[in-house]
Amino acid sequence: MFEARLLQGKVFKQLIEALKDLVQDANIDCTEDELSIQAMDSSHVSLVQVNLQASMFDHFRCDRAISLGFNSTNMSKILKCAGNDDVITLKAEDTADALTLMFESPGQERIADFELKLMDIDAEPLGIPDTTYKCTIRMPSGEFQRIIRDLQVLGDTCIISCTKEGVRFSVSGDLGTGNVLLRSNQGEKEEEQVMIEMEEPVELNFALRYLNFFTKATSLGPSVILSMSPDVPIVVEYPIEDTGHIKYYLAPKIDENE
Amino acid sequence: MFEARLLQGKVFKQLIEALKDLVQDANIDCTEDELSIQAMDSSHVSLVQVNLQASMFDHFRCDRAISLGFNSTNMSKILKCAGNDDVITLKAEDTADALTLMFESPGQERIADFELKLMDIDAEPLGIPDTTYKCTIRMPSGEFQRIIRDLQVLGDTCIISCTKEGVRFSVSGDLGTGNVLLRSNQGEKEEEQVMIEMEEPVELNFALRYLNFFTKATSLGPSVILSMSPDVPIVVEYPIEDTGHIKYYLAPKIDENE
Amino acid sequence: MFEARLLQGKVFKQLIEALKDLVQDANIDCTEDELSIQAMDSSHVSLVQVNLQASMFDHFRCDRAISLGFNSTNMSKILKCAGNDDVITLKAEDTADALTLMFESPGQERIADFELKLMDIDAEPLGIPDTTYKCTIRMPSGEFQRIIRDLQVLGDTCIISCTKEGVRFSVSGDLGTGNVLLRSNQGEKEEEQVMIEMEEPVELNFALRYLNFFTKATSLGPSVILSMSPDVPIVVEYPIEDTGHIKYYLAPKIDENE
Repeated sequence: MFEARLLQGKVFKQLIEALKDLVQDANIDCTEDELSIQAMDSSHVSLVQVNLQASMFDHFRCDRAISLGFNSTNMSKILKCAGNDDVITLKAEDTADALTLMFESPGQERIADFELKLMDIDAEPLGIPDTTYKCTIRMPSGEFQRIIRDLQVLGDTCIISCTKEGVRFSVSGDLGTGNVLLRSNQGEKEEEQVMIEMEEPVELNFALRYLNFFTKATSLGPSVILSMSPDVPIVVEYPIEDTGHIKYYLAPKIDENE
Repeated sequence: MFEARLLQGKVFKQLIEALKDLVQDANIDCTEDELSIQAMDSSHVSLVQVNLQASMFDHFRCDRAISLGFNSTNMSKILKCAGNDDVITLKAEDTADALTLMFESPGQERIADFELKLMDIDAEPLGIPDTTYKCTIRMPSGEFQRIIRDLQVLGDTCIISCTKEGVRFSVSGDLGTGNVLLRSNQGEKEEEQVMIEMEEPVELNFALRYLNFFTKATSLGPSVILSMSPDVPIVVEYPIEDTGHIKYYLAPKIDENE
Repeated sequence: MFEARLLQGKVFKQLIEALKDLVQDANIDCTEDELSIQAMDSSHVSLVQVNLQASMFDHFRCDRAISLGFNSTNMSKILKCAGNDDVITLKAEDTADALTLMFESPGQERIADFELKLMDIDAEPLGIPDTTYKCTIRMPSGEFQRIIRDLQVLGDTCIISCTKEGVRFSVSGDLGTGNVLLRSNQGEKEEEQVMIEMEEPVELNFALRYLNFFTKATSLGPSVILSMSPDVPIVVEYPIEDTGHIKYYLAPKIDENE
């Protein structure tokens, strides 16, 4: 028996929205301690990894570890039926072939329950090595979204270069070139700060198309954290409150000019 | 000579919007006492019936009963030119082949008049028998709209079942099943109440596609009234202030499992 | 060396938006005193003319007169990357084949620079004769936009007739006819006034399609000024603050009934 009740149901809605354009089918893996999702995008270029600690839930019970394979488009359709203020409860029997989603309106006048058919997904979770990154940038998630969206008009590949002064996003294409420099700053509000921790400058190339997919998670929180080291995948992490996250991994493009 | 001046011109705009996706051509029937419209949808599956009492108008004059045949798409195009705060006046000579619509802005700075060509529509009004229904449900119109819209993602047919506890909307389809239960409740505000009057429980199947057309009338008022009895059409009524309404009639689907 | 810094960068964004559906390629002509643009639309039916005085800029330097040929779609794409509160700086070397656009966020945390490739455009500026018009109408730009948009549902050609009482816009087409009369009035707020100065009444026919293109400039200011005389092009002018404008010229249609 698995049962998890999330007062802030909106978080689960937003999580699935943040996945669904990137990942078609995935497992929700539940243990006593947490709910997690790990999946490659359909082109096997990027990896997404979600974690919600049991403590984030109003009620969390998982008698034995269970994998619930779902289609993200269908899950998203059902979650569109949940209001933003609804409490969302996920429920599944140990041998269930369906996941029950219950949506309760704040005043309990309206109770909806949906059964989503589950599927067997053959996916061995990848071990993600613990890495210490040369640069870590914390910036407003809305700013990151806007930069990525803006630069897409100019080209396909974005150079992200991080120095003490700030982080620079550069693109060049047929109609010209563009650079956006975000200066390291400690604004008054935490969610406006651009904080850079670095051992050495890093400059890497990425496909804007994927970075843009990642920004679907923007509504999950005010900040995004980019972690970069030479020759390893960037991590684009959206913390979810204090006890959860969605992380995207994307390998850098090899610079064709080298 | 027919002339009717509606201070709240928005109501007439909303009425035509509530018709136009369902009904292509229809007559506005005017008598001394009221303005009414009755029409089948183009597939002859549902019936819509509108009534505005003369008292709803600032000025209402109809020398002799007259039928004004209009195309709802064209009428809607012209009404898009009226502001939401405009006063709308409808005018036609007894033998007119055009309807004049006049839109006055609140301060009279802007006066627009349009002539819409009329057409002969051969339609005998159906007599709708007075029926006493086993269940009558009054609920927030926005809630009804949302439930119908939400459930459409799951399937084509909706079971509406009404008991003392509340009203349940159920759908099942390829990706799973869904139920929304709206509990009978007497919220503080009248427009949030779900009020059920019933002699006996009723459970009927309806095509969601048509229920969805009916919810185009949502903006006409805070409440919708569903009236159901076994084997007769459901009535979905949107009261318009105290002296008007738009009613939709839809026959239940015969349950294929019986 | 040309360099112009506009604190209200939004104005330049709006200007290019007001051009781009009408004009594909154009020159920005810069002199010591002003920045101007003049171009025919691609069908050579209408003319657009922009003028921003040097005094409108925070900083304006133009060592020698220079013409910067740009593609308006590409310029617009780049300007979409500027925030509405950004300061925009335009820069070009005297012999440059690219225009540099710099966008600074109000707090300077975010600095973006873009290079737009320039092109050679062979365009002799037309001399526009100084004309004294028989009628000049100043009206709210939003009202003008709405009337033009509304009347397009009825037909292609709009008759604009101006008398002491007001200005009337008329259209007739397959589904009927429409007239909008805007009464001369001196509302409390300047931006709500309809002010008519006239020597004699004027009535002219125009293609709604082009008038509609012109209303893309609506966001540039609260007022629009229409200037008309028999047999000469109408001028549709949007003043920009006190020291700039965008003017559109459109020849009247010859009335086919005459």
